[in-house]
Amino acid sequence: MQLERLKDLYVDMLRNMNDSEQQLIDALPEMAENASHNDLKQAFQHHHEETKRQKERLEKVFQNLGEKPSEGKCKGMQGLIDEGKSLIKESKSMVGEDDSKAVLDAGLITAAQRVEHFEIASYGALCTYAEMLDRNDDLKLLQENLDEEKATDSKLNDLAKKVVNPSAKAA
Amino acid sequence: MQLERLKDLYVDMLRNMNDSEQQLIDALPEMAENASHNDLKQAFQHHHEETKRQKERLEKVFQNLGEKPSEGKCKGMQGLIDEGKSLIKESKSMVGEDDSKAVLDAGLITAAQRVEHFEIASYGALCTYAEMLDRNDDLKLLQENLDEEKATDSKLNDLAKKVVNPSAKAA
Repeated sequence: MQLERLKDLYVDMLRNMNDSEQQLIDALPEMAENASHNDLKQAFQHHHEETKRQKERLEKVFQNLGEKPSEGKCKGMQGLIDEGKSLIKESKSMVGEDDSKAVLDAGLITAAQRVEHFEIASYGALCTYAEMLDRNDDLKLLQENLDEEKATDSKLNDLAKKVVNPSAKAA
Repeated sequence: MQLERLKDLYVDMLRNMNDSEQQLIDALPEMAENASHNDLKQAFQHHHEETKRQKERLEKVFQNLGEKPSEGKCKGMQGLIDEGKSLIKESKSMVGEDDSKAVLDAGLITAAQRVEHFEIASYGALCTYAEMLDRNDDLKLLQENLDEEKATDSKLNDLAKKVVNPSAKAA
């Protein structure tokens, strides 16, 4: 593979993730709004702020490269977000007024973890490409995003196990 | 959360994954066909067979539950597959006849890893739900699927590092 070609793929993928982060910035407030458990609501609010900073890091990478983040929807992230929205709608139609809001929280956690794993796979690939292309400044920024996505997934795991599910079992 | 509600979410999610696996069964031959490196081609062919067995395990879970896998597209998987198809199309327009088919392989690996991570997040959640619901026979089947998805992701990591990227660097 010519390095030139790898760089094309790298820039394409960066644009794809730049749009993904924007879609997530737009979607997270609705997820926070629909979360019942306070820890989950706060986790979504926190990740909303974090995602804005992640997008700023991507913008720095584009500056480093002298490239622009062009238009174009990331269909992968769009599908994941649409799926999450369907889940919110469906869960809302299932649950009563009080008794089982935790089912929506459980669903929201799953939808969010699918998104986080999408990003973990994506930033993992971008870090590999940046390393191959000897773009060390980019790599540092992308690695920070990857680490944050992993930490978010891990936090959601804890929330699912410690908060939502024990209350389900106890009910 | 009432266990009844958790079971509804569990069955919904199983249906969602049943459709996801079917979409992947339909998509993997095209991925294998477009892979240039023989190890990658074989990995996709192997995972195609594996995915058929995973769907059979899901069908057993439906039998255990006395439920039917109903209709309905998983938009999340559909978005990921559409994204992968765009990537194949784009990479094909970038690469020449011989010199840089590895760029398409690199892109295919990334698309596949996004799919695997989607499934890891999904089966992770399903295993948690099965455990909560004391559905041990289901859990065993779902854990097998989860383990296979993790192994596939790990194999794709190795392929990216050992096969595609070193050849990129050397070129």
